[in-house]
This record gives sequence, C-alpha cells and structure tokens, in this order.
Amino acid sequence: MSGRLTVVGLGPGDPRHLTPEAAHALAAADALYGYGPYLDRVPARAGQSRHPSDNREEGARAAMALRHASEGARVAVVSGGDPGVFAMAAAVCEQIEHGPEAWRALDVVFVPGITAMLAVAARIGAPLGHDFCALSLSDNLKPWELVEQRLDAAAKAGLVMALYNPISRTRPWQFGSALDRLRRHLPQTTPVVFGRAVGRPDEHISIMALAEADPAHADMATLVIVGSPDTRVVRRPGRAPLVYTPRAAAKVSA
Amino acid sequence: MSGRLTVVGLGPGDPRHLTPEAAHALAAADALYGYGPYLDRVPARAGQSRHPSDNREEGARAAMALRHASEGARVAVVSGGDPGVFAMAAAVCEQIEHGPEAWRALDVVFVPGITAMLAVAARIGAPLGHDFCALSLSDNLKPWELVEQRLDAAAKAGLVMALYNPISRTRPWQFGSALDRLRRHLPQTTPVVFGRAVGRPDEHISIMALAEADPAHADMATLVIVGSPDTRVVRRPGRAPLVYTPRAAAKVSA
Repeated sequence: MSGRLTVVGLGPGDPRHLTPEAAHALAAADALYGYGPYLDRVPARAGQSRHPSDNREEGARAAMALRHASEGARVAVVSGGDPGVFAMAAAVCEQIEHGPEAWRALDVVFVPGITAMLAVAARIGAPLGHDFCALSLSDNLKPWELVEQRLDAAAKAGLVMALYNPISRTRPWQFGSALDRLRRHLPQTTPVVFGRAVGRPDEHISIMALAEADPAHADMATLVIVGSPDTRVVRRPGRAPLVYTPRAAAKVSA
Repeated sequence: MSGRLTVVGLGPGDPRHLTPEAAHALAAADALYGYGPYLDRVPARAGQSRHPSDNREEGARAAMALRHASEGARVAVVSGGDPGVFAMAAAVCEQIEHGPEAWRALDVVFVPGITAMLAVAARIGAPLGHDFCALSLSDNLKPWELVEQRLDAAAKAGLVMALYNPISRTRPWQFGSALDRLRRHLPQTTPVVFGRAVGRPDEHISIMALAEADPAHADMATLVIVGSPDTRVVRRPGRAPLVYTPRAAAKVSA
C-alpha cells in the first residue's frame, strides 16, 4: 500500500465554495489533519480518523501528516481558503525539504480553494480588478520592518492590497501601525474593506475611508482589502455600494 | 419580474474546480453572456439563451448583459478563473458606474472562482506561500511604463509575482522585456513557472531558472509565476520538483 498526502483548500467557510475536487479528496481520506475549527467544517465519516491541532503548529502538523502518509495511509491536511496562500501547503513543502528522504518519494497533491480575498472581493464588487498584492501582517515569521517595507512598496506602486492575518491577541498593535503607515502614502478617501467570516453565519462586511479605518474592526477572522488611488466606490440607492478597481490605469503613481 | 445579474467564475477549466455556488448560478440563468471559449465550457440547457462575444469586448458585453437583466431576466456573465481578477467583475462595475441610473438598482451578485494563479501554484507546491502580487502584463489599458514600475517595485520588495496576460498576438515583445527587467533585480536562479491551460487536456507546466526563462514558452493561456529570492525548488527522485516560498522571511531585501 502506498500512502498519499493531499493538502485540501476548504474555501472561506460556505460549503457552496467547496470545489468538487476538494469534496472528493476529503471523502477519499483515511485520516484528516488540521486546525480544529477547520476540521469541524468537514462532516464526520465512518472509518476516517481526525487529528485536530492548534493554530500555531503548522510545521508539527505537517510532519505528523507526512509521517502518517509515509506509513501507507491516504491522509488529507485541511486548510481554510486556499492551502497555497499563507496556509498549509508551504508548511508541508518545508517539512518535505527538511525531513526524511522517504517523504520526497510520497505522492503529494495540492487541491486549490477559494482564498479569503477572492470571497471578500466578490461580496462587494471587484476591488482586486487590477494589479494587487497579498501581504500577511503577521510578524511571527518575519521582521516587522519587512512588513513595513512591503506596505510602502505596494502603496507607492499603486497596488491594491489584500491584508491577511491583520491582528491577533499576540499581535495587537501591528494592524493599527500598518494603517497609519498607509495614510502617509494614500489618499485619505481610499476605500478600506473589512471582510469578516465571509460565507459563515457571523459574516460582516464593512467599507470605510482610510482616514476613518479603525483597527478595532478587525479580528483573526478578518481579511482587509485596501484600495489603490484608482479604486472607486459606486453608491447605489437601496443597495450596498460597489467597490471596484478599474481595468484601466492611466498614469504612473509618484 | 425583477432581473438579476450574476458574474460567475468558472475556475481554470477543470469541471472539478467549479464551485457548487457557480454551478447553481449557471443553472438558474435565463441567459448566458461571455467570451466564446468560456461559454463553450458551460453545458447547454433548454430555455437558456447564449450570447458569446469576442475576447476584447468586455465593456460592451457587460453593458449588453446589464441591459438584458434590467429588462427582467436572470442573466449570468461567465469568466474564466475568478471574475474579480483581471476579468468581468470590474467591467460590470464600470458599466454600472457610468451607465443608466436603473442599472444601480439591479440585483448584482459576484460568484468567486479558482483563479489561474491558485491552480498553477497547486500543481507544483506552494510558490505563493508568502507575500505575493498579481500583475497583468497587458498594456492595452495602462502604459507599459506602469507595468515596468510595478515589476521593479515587486522585485525589490521581495514579492513573488503571478503574471497574468503575459503575451498575445498584439503584444509580442512585452513579456520578454519584462523577464529582462526582472533579471536586473533577481538572482538568475530564481524559479519561473509557466502554467498553461491548467486542468484542461492540453495542460503543460514547466519550471525553469530566470536566466533560462524563454518567453516563447508562454501564450495567451499561460499564467507565469516568478519566485522571490526566498523561493525554493525541492528535487524529488521520480517525481516533479516542488516549488515553494517559505512562510518565514528572515531579512529585508535590498
């Protein structure tokens, strides 16, 4: 029997965003590994073992899953959103690079999912309609100076920004500091979108101008999109406004 | 009868990447609009009209679809990948902003999809595992100088790049020029991934070093990922290499 490891993207939370490929990979697994709340989204299945672990144990979780697969099991590691965007796919690759030689021989498959920025963007229009970047604000694994350098570079280059991991209990001030920094570069009217728990019952979306953007609106389940100077807000009578970035960009920003 | 416009992401081509939400939206439509080859991916359905149009007519297509919806029909506009990433969602928002007031009253829904960069990344590991950007190389709607400025900024900031629309018949030299430009900033060994037609029968993925990256490997159906100086290639005996960007970044790039 030869094992297989599948790294599966669950999407942001609404089952209607789970692709058929992901559903099939989950159903075919002997064992499921993942952060507890993500595993809870996967319906229980007879004969399938479940191995929840804590939020900040990605490396150890990946190693456990690889070991289990190398013993011959069909193992699925689940990720919220897309596993390749600030999630488990890189953790699995890291373990394969630095782990036992046998792990390089394993059949490893990555199953993409709808990542949070796409789901949040779809709720409000098309803020990612032109050039953009995706940045993690977590300084657990990189120096804060690097985050600042990338915020500066993205703002100066006119890129829309999707900000992952804006805030957590152990990182309380970073998001406010990032917003302050962006206010140096961007118009105060730049739209900022807070998308919390998209597709889940406690979903909440809000749009505000950069000048008024309050870091207290974000938590661990929030994805923040900061517009570029080109990003537009279209008011609609009786409906939520649309936020979008036009496909055309006329001028080079300063 | 009140109309509705739904902008639907089909994913990169494999039906197993079509979300249940997208499948439902397609089934519920009275009329489908889209670029011909994308419409061809949607199974025909009795009583549903189909309105294919050409590749470079996004604005006119969006306007036709909005007009049809404003007459009371349930209209779906289809996009390859995700409609919010260099695709139809922004074109629809533009038409709503600049079109008749009645279009602002319409029920408009955006259905996200697996965008090409996520599908290509999943085929080879986790190249988008840390901070990255998505840039369109098309200079149809922006000056080439802006593309160059963004390539420079992304490379200097250490962002991985997903390059959409690298090349076409009317834009033959731009991608080669972009690669030359990136060679000024990035190590010659930086991995470059060409992902063509992912999930379709003619899929082709290749990985090469930036020094050897040949623009002739790309066509209109290709998504290119250029690594950062942190991006790693993991060789595996008897298997394709993994390409990934580690979650940790230690130093500030120059």
